[in-house]
Amino acid sequence: MAAPWAHRYAQRTKSVKSSVIRELLKITQRPEVISFAGGLPAPEVFPVARFQEACQRVLATQPTTALQYGPTEGYRPLREFIVAQMARYGIVATVDNVLITSGSQQALDLIAKLLINRGDRILVESPTYLGALQAFDLMGAEYVTVPVDDDGLQTCNMEQALRSGPKFMYILPNFQNPGGVTLARRRRDQLVELSDRYGIPIIEDDPYGQLRYEGEHITPLVVLDRTNLARDKDYKLGNVIYLSTFSKVLAPGLRVAWIVAPAEVIAKLVQIKQSTDLHTSTFTQMVTYEAARDGFIDEHVKLIRSTYRQRRDAMLSALHNFFPPEVSWTHPQGGLFLWVTMPPGVDSSRLLELALRQNVAFVPGEPFFPNGDTGSHMRLNFSNAQPEQIREGIRRLSIAVAHELEHRSVGVLV
Amino acid sequence: MAAPWAHRYAQRTKSVKSSVIRELLKITQRPEVISFAGGLPAPEVFPVARFQEACQRVLATQPTTALQYGPTEGYRPLREFIVAQMARYGIVATVDNVLITSGSQQALDLIAKLLINRGDRILVESPTYLGALQAFDLMGAEYVTVPVDDDGLQTCNMEQALRSGPKFMYILPNFQNPGGVTLARRRRDQLVELSDRYGIPIIEDDPYGQLRYEGEHITPLVVLDRTNLARDKDYKLGNVIYLSTFSKVLAPGLRVAWIVAPAEVIAKLVQIKQSTDLHTSTFTQMVTYEAARDGFIDEHVKLIRSTYRQRRDAMLSALHNFFPPEVSWTHPQGGLFLWVTMPPGVDSSRLLELALRQNVAFVPGEPFFPNGDTGSHMRLNFSNAQPEQIREGIRRLSIAVAHELEHRSVGVLV
Repeated sequence: MAAPWAHRYAQRTKSVKSSVIRELLKITQRPEVISFAGGLPAPEVFPVARFQEACQRVLATQPTTALQYGPTEGYRPLREFIVAQMARYGIVATVDNVLITSGSQQALDLIAKLLINRGDRILVESPTYLGALQAFDLMGAEYVTVPVDDDGLQTCNMEQALRSGPKFMYILPNFQNPGGVTLARRRRDQLVELSDRYGIPIIEDDPYGQLRYEGEHITPLVVLDRTNLARDKDYKLGNVIYLSTFSKVLAPGLRVAWIVAPAEVIAKLVQIKQSTDLHTSTFTQMVTYEAARDGFIDEHVKLIRSTYRQRRDAMLSALHNFFPPEVSWTHPQGGLFLWVTMPPGVDSSRLLELALRQNVAFVPGEPFFPNGDTGSHMRLNFSNAQPEQIREGIRRLSIAVAHELEHRSVGVLV
Repeated sequence: MAAPWAHRYAQRTKSVKSSVIRELLKITQRPEVISFAGGLPAPEVFPVARFQEACQRVLATQPTTALQYGPTEGYRPLREFIVAQMARYGIVATVDNVLITSGSQQALDLIAKLLINRGDRILVESPTYLGALQAFDLMGAEYVTVPVDDDGLQTCNMEQALRSGPKFMYILPNFQNPGGVTLARRRRDQLVELSDRYGIPIIEDDPYGQLRYEGEHITPLVVLDRTNLARDKDYKLGNVIYLSTFSKVLAPGLRVAWIVAPAEVIAKLVQIKQSTDLHTSTFTQMVTYEAARDGFIDEHVKLIRSTYRQRRDAMLSALHNFFPPEVSWTHPQGGLFLWVTMPPGVDSSRLLELALRQNVAFVPGEPFFPNGDTGSHMRLNFSNAQPEQIREGIRRLSIAVAHELEHRSVGVLV
């Protein structure tokens, strides 16, 4: 008689946690719930007509290429397009520095496979992106954390973490998920200098970089690093792997993203990707290219920026109007998320239960802290609801918060 | 100064071999080369008009679903369609037994992540599919092999391999890649019985099952296993995970395949897939569903079968006419590949060099043997060339073979 499957699972499956976000999203599909829980782009700004044209053009002119197996590196015109787009942000690359991935989540999986041995420590921001932790967990990662504040990662406060010998640093410099904070320019210089001094590479995850609603663009870490690279000929490969995606500027359903890295690193990642899924869909890559080209994406990003800026402003304004003074929140200059910090003693899981009773949802802060929570937090997404829904949702949430604050007080008094 | 990247790679990258097939495919893109090296479907039978209609319908009627993030399990109507299709082959499943993957290669990656700890032994056919070895290698697998003959895996010859404690068996029962052989019914019964007796699960990889050109359909392992399951109430979950794909019956460029497994196993694989790429493109899943439905795929498979049967017959006939009597080959009843065995002493890498000089390509047998080659072999693909090209390619290849046999004789004499 065969042993049950469970006995045959590898040890690593012990670390496969049921995703809080995932389970939540199921609850929040009820139409009466206003959800700030997901990280979904606004479907109102999907360029549907442009995609219709792109599909027709691809299938009319290059059906065989679109439907056949393709190179693991990705569709070459799309890689060339990405090189040209990135050059405008100062990121100097050739096609040999670009690998197309099936969404940025796959980029994290490939990097984890390349760099992580079981028990390796990864330096992450506290809090950090849950999906990265899940990808790194699968390869047996452990974590050393450095806190973030309103200027991003506290670079003045990380030498101890660096001395503990992390394999790499995973950093979201722009409008961080979940914190909504942005790494200040001065700290970027420090971080790249520390990376070089300690010989510890940086994974720079930048899905939202183009979605800035106020303030000036700040130079990416990969650009600061390459500047050092140009200055110093012993500095062979560069220390930064840069990730970005079409998910937030065109549509996530296509699953098309990219990695920029030294050519030697890309060559290794290509081998790993070949074993992982052979290649990203040729058809979706070609459709992405046809939709994005000829300046379309730049005009489209302007529309997304103005839509999301309104929604962010609606959320900031509603928080100001409805939330009690003991609660604070970040002021994101871009991206999709805002991070709320509650006074000590608030139980954010109990708060979520209260909120769901009011038909409003958020993600509690705990899963974003790999080594345990430090306080009570909510991540709020503002891209996927209309301004009037945002106002109503924050009003409902404020009722749950007031209730929980009272409950907490009662708890202290009793 | 930072250490070079190479020093930071995980140990597992030592096992990332440059794929022979991949490098070959680059050479064989020269238009004058007739390539039997790849495993590409015939582009002539891609249903382009059907895909054009499917894209238009999806984007006209459900653009928001198609372009947005979707559930990790896959697009539900596609999973239901797969359940109905599989029922016709006797495979009893519900949607909870089906996970959509980004091609079958991803199915192998997810299974490797779930089941393989570094150093685990996997039982594989000798020879076996190279892509599976690459996926398993990434998780640190080692191998125990059982030879195949014209009736597939030698089940009478595997008790020693089973006693060595493999984590699972990886089996391609139909028109095996690379051997082109099919597991006989009697051996399927034995294999499922052995799996149960030793408590060792089976991964049944069946990408070509519908592409049978002669003989009768043979019951899949998963069906034989479920029959036992129905008979014996202590036999809890079933021992077989079944894999198949739309790549060979619609188009590989969409990267849509599936896993059938006990619901508890699917739930674990869903968690792993979430960390790996969140989900397979919603758009390509919906286009696949719209293209396949309403009986289209069944009619289309008939066209593919008749096209590939002609090509297989052209290759068998050309081999018979041009190849010397010391060389033997398999007679595949379906699928895409045929396996040629050369007399001892033939160096198949040198033969490949000679063949490329004649502008014809194949894949040498070595990489399909995880524990070292046992003899001199060629894998020949017959799906991606017209019958007249196949005849001409085999003629050219016979010149290279004759040259190599002569060279080998000289080597023996001198």
